[in-house]
Amino acid sequence: MPDLNRRQFLAAATSATVASAASTRPPNVVMIYCDDMGYGDLGCYGSRIRTPNVDRMASEGIRFTHFYSGNPVCSPSRAGLLTGRYPVRAGVPRVLFPTDKTGLPGSEVTIAQMLKARSYASMCIGKWHLGHLPEYLPVNRGFDEYFGIPYSNDMTPRPLLHNTETLEEPAKLETLTPRYTEQALRFIERSKGSPFFLYMAHTYPHIPLGASERFRGRSPLGLYGDVVEELDWSTGEILSALKKHGLDNNTLVMFSSDNGPWYLGSPGHLRGRKGSTYEGGQRVPFIARFPGRIPRGRTCAGVASVLDILPTLSRLCDVPLPGNPPDGIDIWPLIAGQRPALDREALLMFDNTYLQCARWRQWKLHLARYNSAAYSPVPAGGRVNLPLPAPELYDVVNDPDESYDVAPEHPEVVAEIRSRIERLMAGFPDQVRKDWTEAKTRKVAPTAVGNFPRLAN
Amino acid sequence: MPDLNRRQFLAAATSATVASAASTRPPNVVMIYCDDMGYGDLGCYGSRIRTPNVDRMASEGIRFTHFYSGNPVCSPSRAGLLTGRYPVRAGVPRVLFPTDKTGLPGSEVTIAQMLKARSYASMCIGKWHLGHLPEYLPVNRGFDEYFGIPYSNDMTPRPLLHNTETLEEPAKLETLTPRYTEQALRFIERSKGSPFFLYMAHTYPHIPLGASERFRGRSPLGLYGDVVEELDWSTGEILSALKKHGLDNNTLVMFSSDNGPWYLGSPGHLRGRKGSTYEGGQRVPFIARFPGRIPRGRTCAGVASVLDILPTLSRLCDVPLPGNPPDGIDIWPLIAGQRPALDREALLMFDNTYLQCARWRQWKLHLARYNSAAYSPVPAGGRVNLPLPAPELYDVVNDPDESYDVAPEHPEVVAEIRSRIERLMAGFPDQVRKDWTEAKTRKVAPTAVGNFPRLAN
Repeated sequence: MPDLNRRQFLAAATSATVASAASTRPPNVVMIYCDDMGYGDLGCYGSRIRTPNVDRMASEGIRFTHFYSGNPVCSPSRAGLLTGRYPVRAGVPRVLFPTDKTGLPGSEVTIAQMLKARSYASMCIGKWHLGHLPEYLPVNRGFDEYFGIPYSNDMTPRPLLHNTETLEEPAKLETLTPRYTEQALRFIERSKGSPFFLYMAHTYPHIPLGASERFRGRSPLGLYGDVVEELDWSTGEILSALKKHGLDNNTLVMFSSDNGPWYLGSPGHLRGRKGSTYEGGQRVPFIARFPGRIPRGRTCAGVASVLDILPTLSRLCDVPLPGNPPDGIDIWPLIAGQRPALDREALLMFDNTYLQCARWRQWKLHLARYNSAAYSPVPAGGRVNLPLPAPELYDVVNDPDESYDVAPEHPEVVAEIRSRIERLMAGFPDQVRKDWTEAKTRKVAPTAVGNFPRLAN
Repeated sequence: MPDLNRRQFLAAATSATVASAASTRPPNVVMIYCDDMGYGDLGCYGSRIRTPNVDRMASEGIRFTHFYSGNPVCSPSRAGLLTGRYPVRAGVPRVLFPTDKTGLPGSEVTIAQMLKARSYASMCIGKWHLGHLPEYLPVNRGFDEYFGIPYSNDMTPRPLLHNTETLEEPAKLETLTPRYTEQALRFIERSKGSPFFLYMAHTYPHIPLGASERFRGRSPLGLYGDVVEELDWSTGEILSALKKHGLDNNTLVMFSSDNGPWYLGSPGHLRGRKGSTYEGGQRVPFIARFPGRIPRGRTCAGVASVLDILPTLSRLCDVPLPGNPPDGIDIWPLIAGQRPALDREALLMFDNTYLQCARWRQWKLHLARYNSAAYSPVPAGGRVNLPLPAPELYDVVNDPDESYDVAPEHPEVVAEIRSRIERLMAGFPDQVRKDWTEAKTRKVAPTAVGNFPRLAN
């Protein structure tokens, strides 16, 4: 039981049992989900940006150091969070644009829908990005209420919606974080009598950035720093409101991001950024706080994913899993500090429908990558995924920036991960399996490594 | 005088004066220059790769933390080292290929030529990459002798040359580091009677990697680790030979790299890799050791560049500067630990003939970047540089991974750097000034930031 003080652990486990027995009402759930926030953008993850509220949240709960988003870009990542399933399986393999007429398929079950089995009140605030036409909006996907921009803030016309109605267009960038926060506090206040689920999906720090007057110019790290300081303030407001209403000991609060940093923002010591399945594109901050149920001040280095949130909430809130089987697993033993790590077949990472790599234990196996030298107008968007001339294996514990390929030294690990991938892929939709089979047989000259611009990150 | 123990400093300064007065023979110079070694690939720069010899060299000398190569790719970087001039000015703005019929122009003066004024014996060992036709090879550019591959090890046919004669083709990858080292030791032994200049331009860790039997499988970080351990061994052999021949106190030994890491290797905590003017592409390790002249165990955070080596050697070895004025400055006061930093107009960073950014004091101003979304077959190679919609300013001391643009907060710094750039660019060749003027007037829609694949690194 490394990193775990055994006495503290037993004390926490006992108090957890007591808390659980004392309350028949299931816990409230708050998910604070930032947009494009990097692994290195929070004080408690090594940033120089001041985030005292999030840092305190981490010191009162548990902070994960190997937590992955569901995809390195927005829409698929959010589909992964809300369904517990790989975005390729949940029908949202790529970023959605305002010109798209689709969204998260109705056959998918969201966390909000799942929690309805125990009559959770629910609200989605902020960026949705799983379809902007009415039938795809949060109020038609299990949420009681919605307030926010239905896609990214760099897309037009950028309406600010309440449920399905446009309040403002384009939404004023500098007002978003305070208005989202105000909505969150009002939701908490009026929902305090029933179990509730608040999905606080911030618009920021996705560009174009906006911070309110009070925060502009405060950070020595520029507007990005101001924006993150305001997100931190917002988190502090939510935690204060929970305390004020006596909900502190019956609410699980989580904080995370949908993918790595884009143009601005820091991936910390990780390689790659948004859009990449190198760690910097997909490893994100994850903090969970639940006084009495989660011991204070822990860190967890076990592998976990945002796909795990839905199955974990199913157990924690005592609601049945959806009929569509989740790809994530119940990570409550990690969150509650009961186990340092959990076994899982492997965690897969995709670019659109292309499998690029898999994480298993301390290893990450890279099999394919998109090739900027092969950029072409066909297919539209021009991302051509090519299998690597040879698979690359990184020990992301001892080589956190994926600098040193050790595949030739560990053929048994490569084989083990390959067979785990095959078992997992067998259960995937036809198109994904077809792409996968085709990718494996696609010929690439081994000398392609000499092709300069192939890997820009 | 921060980071400087004043007593130690005065003692070193006194012993330096004594050493200098005692010897009328100018010092020997050894430049160990690795290929594609990243800022984070050495033990003394935070790597887990074991490099005890280089680490000891650093502890006996000075280690720089803000030292820049002349360009983020091979050929131009080497032109910058050997001429002390920006590669665009020295006539080598881009990587040379085996199909090229050109090289470093005869009008340029190399360090080896400069040192001939005091009858230095000189040898170039390893990768040349400044023209592979006879008239461009080291023996015709000021060196007495050459042993190595005239370009990168991923290019064909990869001949191993002695002077202008092919010894082996293709050169056996796993033999290179030991054979280069053997050549270095023999050169030191036979040159010990005269001042000498050894340019030890390793082939590695550029891919494809190769290590000798003795080093293969030694590093837990794979073949890359093995290769770097062998480069470290080679450095130890050179330092031992200098000691054995009583040359230790009259030899300046330097260790650096030509640019950041490519596919493999670590840029440490820096953003970007080889090919990028983000720090990870161009900030490199630099260590200098000269017992009695350089105090032990220092680090220097002053800005320095490989362009500074030629002017520094001109003063140290007491030889006149070439007629072509160098862009670098004499950094002996930094190397000798006499000053924490030196003033300079600005340090410019180019992609081919395009100015991308400039470093001044703790600031880095980015003005243009190549755009992978704009990849096209024209011009050949497809690198289209576009001015950024707005310049980006990074405080690389407080924001080492260039994550937080602070241009809007510091318009006076932006203006100051811009005017310094204008003064410097006025002295550049026509083509560079033309590209520069054109770049400034090229129109880019501010919304281009929403173009996803534009910045992969």
